Formats: sequence, structure tokens, C-alpha cells
Amino acid sequence: MELVQKALKGNRRAIARLISLAENEEKEAVTALREMFPLTGKAHIVGITGPPGSGKSTMTDKLVKELRKRGKKVAILAVDPASPFTGGAILGDRVRMSDLNLDEGVYIRSLSTRGKLGGLSKATHYAVKILDACGFDYIFIETVGVGQSEVDIIKTADSILVVTVPGLGDDIQAIKAGILEIGDIFIVNKADRDGANRVVIELEMMLGLNAEKDEWDHPILMTVASENKGIIEVVEAVIRHKEYLDKTGLLAERRRERLETEVLELVVQNMTRYVNEKFVKDGSFQEEVDKLVRKENDPYTLVQSILADTVK
Amino acid sequence: MELVQKALKGNRRAIARLISLAENEEKEAVTALREMFPLTGKAHIVGITGPPGSGKSTMTDKLVKELRKRGKKVAILAVDPASPFTGGAILGDRVRMSDLNLDEGVYIRSLSTRGKLGGLSKATHYAVKILDACGFDYIFIETVGVGQSEVDIIKTADSILVVTVPGLGDDIQAIKAGILEIGDIFIVNKADRDGANRVVIELEMMLGLNAEKDEWDHPILMTVASENKGIIEVVEAVIRHKEYLDKTGLLAERRRERLETEVLELVVQNMTRYVNEKFVKDGSFQEEVDKLVRKENDPYTLVQSILADTVK
Repeated sequence: MELVQKALKGNRRAIARLISLAENEEKEAVTALREMFPLTGKAHIVGITGPPGSGKSTMTDKLVKELRKRGKKVAILAVDPASPFTGGAILGDRVRMSDLNLDEGVYIRSLSTRGKLGGLSKATHYAVKILDACGFDYIFIETVGVGQSEVDIIKTADSILVVTVPGLGDDIQAIKAGILEIGDIFIVNKADRDGANRVVIELEMMLGLNAEKDEWDHPILMTVASENKGIIEVVEAVIRHKEYLDKTGLLAERRRERLETEVLELVVQNMTRYVNEKFVKDGSFQEEVDKLVRKENDPYTLVQSILADTVK
Repeated sequence: MELVQKALKGNRRAIARLISLAENEEKEAVTALREMFPLTGKAHIVGITGPPGSGKSTMTDKLVKELRKRGKKVAILAVDPASPFTGGAILGDRVRMSDLNLDEGVYIRSLSTRGKLGGLSKATHYAVKILDACGFDYIFIETVGVGQSEVDIIKTADSILVVTVPGLGDDIQAIKAGILEIGDIFIVNKADRDGANRVVIELEMMLGLNAEKDEWDHPILMTVASENKGIIEVVEAVIRHKEYLDKTGLLAERRRERLETEVLELVVQNMTRYVNEKFVKDGSFQEEVDKLVRKENDPYTLVQSILADTVK
């Protein structure tokens, strides 16, 4: 495919076009992805998550700048969770008004679900594949770490950075606790604020409770991203984690899991589409729902009969 | 079923047991749900959502107390989004240490996903059905309104209350904007704080931009839930919305949509389970993933062949 050849040579328009095709699930996208798949597997995927207001975007920008100094090509995927409501990215446009846009070695893209079931996860998988094949050394996936679907997305990264800040409310602390299990590197950002040390201690305690029996030390780093403080240490922790994953064989394991997840998600999404096309579009489903409304049937019996008509 | 008969007579242990059976997807649960389905459709389902820290739980408690004064039986389902990580409800236990637990006319339950795909939504649908059949006049579904899956849950309510507060950060405002489209009644809680009037004005502006062409006025109410201020007005807005839905036929429409959603979700979840059992458990899937790892096949071709083996 000509578009693929252009993208592989680093043409940003071609890359953007491919990701858009994939996002919109055009048939050409699958052809392109098939062609590009053998070239994937070189990029290091970094997931960055944390509660709203923790400064993830600034953090990502600074990390990317540091990696650029080291000669790495970097892509950023800003995965926007708010969009299911409105059909467009809410955070994405605002967040990415960065001077990084002027750097040819950086590619930035916002992804939003546009209301499609599982769409965000699929679009992220596709975009990661495309950027990986196109030779980006690091791909950052940035999300507001609150919903299940985002966690599922971030889980597929090689290295997961969890960003938090002092002074968040109780609910947010509870959510943060939930993200602990998936984090590889923890960052207390805005560490010049009161209470930063307390957050570090809390994290240490919580990580201690959740301690897995592996050799990775789950570092907790303090940063003031807006002032570029502590950024080099984070980049070095990422590189150290990359080397750790490589050495222990965990990198191959995580990537294998990512492929598994991707295939199973695609299967389920295709099935969902099939069910929609088979039952919902032709109106027969509406008749069945009418029966439910009149209490002539129950939902569980209807589900069984749809399955019997669908699955081999 | 004996358990169903007990639950229908108001036995709380039986109700709790039925919801647990449904949550864990025991076969008995489907039998029970089939039996109870014809008795559903009387309860008014109230969804209550808002960003972390907006005081949703306190709000729900006070609304429920007011409805109890009016002789209504009320159930609360606290849907916990943080749990996918740990397998248990994080918010739920903490939130619900309320004196409402002593009231025989109130039933309170936390629901968490326990890591199952689509589990939370399904468990909520089931619990709503059970509580509806058991004669609760109002069923509150309370979530932290941030993830896609929660929005999908709350969307199935008859009346949707969106709670916000003055002084939240930028990201949260962005998320809040996303919830606007689904709200029927807006509440600015902690309205004794600075900036409450500004939030009301912002909401009015945003609602003006999003104005649908319907006759419902989308009221914006100010409350201080912790001091019981403004609670009666919220309850009356809910009752007014209930009457509005009834009068216009929208109630039947929303309930029909809820049934549709429920059936389609169940179909997809059953298919997912089928795919897992057919391919993942027997090891053949692992062999196929090995081929992907070796780049001998690509994920998109594998998906097509799994679908060809699965769907009629």
C-alpha cells in the first residue's frame, strides 16, 4: 500500500491518515495493519495514568522532551475518556497545545471513542501498531485513570507510570489505591505542595501491602513537572524498567498478553456488530422487545434464543 | 422458587441472597429473574452521578430520608467503579455507614465488578429487577460519573441527577461537561462554598448550548446536603420529572431502551464467555498467539478465522 510506504518513511500526514482510517474502521486500515504488523515490536510502550488534576499531560511533555534530548523518536497518544458523551475529544484538544508539535521527532495524537463500544481500546491498539511500525522508539499512552476501559488500555503498556499529587479528596485517594496494582513506577507530582512526603509514605505503605514477589522495586519518585524537576529520574526509571523487562523475559510476556487481549477484544467487537446487524437493523429485535414490554417473554429467554440463532 | 417468594414478601436476607446469586451468575439467579420479571416495572429508577468529591453519597442519603418521610420504600445501589482492580468494592463499604441501615424500608447494597467484563452493568440490571419486583418504590443507582461503563449504567435510569460542586479542577470540569447531555436534574451541592453561583451560571450556559427541543426544563438546584438544605426541592424535582415522563410517554420509552440495552449486553457477554471457553481454555488459542509472536500470522487474519469458526 502506498500510504503504508509513505508512513514507514516517516511522512506524518500518511501516519495521521492511517490512524484515522483505523479509528473509523475503514477496510483499508486492516489491509494496512496486516502489512505493518511484521514491523512491530520495537517500540517501548509507556502508559501514563492518574487522577484528574495530577498533571499527567505536563509530565508527559517533559518526559518526551528529555527523551528527545537523548535522540529518541516519541509518539504520544492522549486517550480521552470524556468523549463518549459528546462524540469528540474533550481533553485532547486543550491538553496538546504544546511546543512539541513543532518537533519532527514527535508525533501527538488524541484518541476518543466516538461512542462506539470498545472503540477506544481498539483505536489505541491500532494506533500503537502503526506508530511502532513507523519507527517511534517510545509510545506514550496517556489517560485519566478512572474507568475500567482506560485501565484495560493502560494495562497493555510495557511500563506503567502512575502519577498522583498531594491534596486530593477522599474519593480520588480510593481510586488511586485501585491503580496501585498495575503501576510499575509511581510519581508524586507537584511535590512542592504540602503533604507530598505524606503521599510518598502512604504509597510506600500501600505498595508494601500489595508487594508482589518480583525483583522490580516499584520506585516512588517526586517531581515538579511544570518546573522540570525530577524528570530525568523518571526517564531513567523508565529505561531501567525497560531493561528489567527485557532481562527477565517479562517484556515478551507482556507483549504476548497484549496480542491476546487485542485478538479477543476484536472478536467480541465483531460479534457485537454482527448481532446488531442481524437483529437490530432488520426490526425483528424490536418485535421481541415489544414482547418483553408486554411481559409476554423475559429478557433471559430472549437472550438464549438470540444466542442459539447466532453462535455455532 | 422459595427464595423468590420470601424476597417478594420483603425478607431482606432473601433479597440480599438473590442479588448475590445474580452477581455471581449462578444458574438459580436466572430462574429467579425469569419468575420475577413480570412483576417489574413499578419502581422509579433514579441515577445519581457526579465527579469524585461532589457529595453524592450524602445527597443520596438525604433524598432517601425525605422519601421515607413520604412513606416510600427505597433501595440504594452503590455502584463502585474502583473495584475492577482489587476485586472488591472500595468506595462501597466506606460510604454506606449510614443510619439508614436501621430502617426496614430501606435496602442498601454495594455492587462491584470483580474484574468481570461487563459484570457491573449486568449486576446492576439484575439488582434493579429484583428490587423492583420486591416492591421498592424508588431505586437509586449511585456512581462516580467518570467511566464509560458507569455512564452506560446510569443512562438506564428513569431520572438522572447530576451532582457537582464549586471549586473542582479543570479536568473534572471537562468530565462534568460530558455528563451534561444525560442529566435530567442538576444539583450544585456544597452551595455554601465560594463560586456556587458561578457554577450555576456555567451550567445554565452549557445547558443552553445543549438545549434539546423537549418540554422538560432541566432544573439546576442548589443544596448543602450535609445540612439537609435544598433536599426537599430535589425530591420534588424528581417527582415532577417522574410525572413528566409518565405524561409524555417517555417513561415507557426509556424503559424499553433499558430492556434493549440489557438484552444486547447479555448477548455480547454470553458470546464473550463462549469465545473464552471455546478458544482460550483448550490451548488452541495459545498456539495461534504463538504464531502472532513469531509474526507468522497477523491479529486481523486470526480474528477473521475465529469468527468464521464461531458465528453462524
